[in-house]
Amino acid sequence: MAALRTLNDLFLHALKDIHYSERLILRALPKMVKKAQTPELKEALETHRGVTEVQIQRLQKIFDILQKPSRGVKCEAMDGIIAEAESLMEEIDDPEVADAGIIANAQSVAHYEITRYGTLAAWAQELGMDEAAKLLHQTLEEEKGADRKLSDLAQ
Amino acid sequence: MAALRTLNDLFLHALKDIHYSERLILRALPKMVKKAQTPELKEALETHRGVTEVQIQRLQKIFDILQKPSRGVKCEAMDGIIAEAESLMEEIDDPEVADAGIIANAQSVAHYEITRYGTLAAWAQELGMDEAAKLLHQTLEEEKGADRKLSDLAQ
Repeated sequence: MAALRTLNDLFLHALKDIHYSERLILRALPKMVKKAQTPELKEALETHRGVTEVQIQRLQKIFDILQKPSRGVKCEAMDGIIAEAESLMEEIDDPEVADAGIIANAQSVAHYEITRYGTLAAWAQELGMDEAAKLLHQTLEEEKGADRKLSDLAQ
Repeated sequence: MAALRTLNDLFLHALKDIHYSERLILRALPKMVKKAQTPELKEALETHRGVTEVQIQRLQKIFDILQKPSRGVKCEAMDGIIAEAESLMEEIDDPEVADAGIIANAQSVAHYEITRYGTLAAWAQELGMDEAAKLLHQTLEEEKGADRKLSDLAQ
């Protein structure tokens, strides 16, 4: 990793981190759909796959604004969140509790995105990058909505 | 890991997961305090160390209610979040941006706790464990407060 000296460096690093994370989520979602039991949860996760694709396109737009290649950087946090979700899914041995476990893990993914997009949006604003801030806020609101939807499904 | 068949199994597993995470946070906080630049951030992180100790005591009370030994189980998600925070702290080469990076990482820790305690509190309620639910809600509100405090400091 190159030394991080300015808020611009931090912003670009966090952007690469979330870009890597989003692509990891895109690959993990079909496994969660397959394991989900109720049609409502299956549908919510499938919808979120499309939402994730749009979120990745938004990130690419921001890389364009920065005139930087849209590249990811290994995100150990999301690696861990996904690894834990996958190992939990393997251990769940009863369809009755599968959905409860999947919802818990999907919410932990959504919360990681909420915290990262919240930070990115604040930094973009501080750096005077209004268009980037707008795009990041859109994703932030989508993730908050996804988290609420999952809480509703958990009931 | 033993097979997870009931909501009780899931609850106990998530309790062990967050117990491990809290102890990891307890060890990571002094390094963050040392790296923090402004007295306000140093103080907030030091205060949170005390809060974390109380949160661990609450978890021990819940293990007692369940009549289970208070044990942790490796949490790959928190391992990843902390590993990423520590490697970012090492790469930050300017005191001006150190606090911005530390706040971002502390918020990602807080959000992991918010999602896990939110799930645990909901499951405790569903399992009719009122006392455990109350204890978990206390920690949940503390973590939401910590996240807000960090957002204020970021301004």
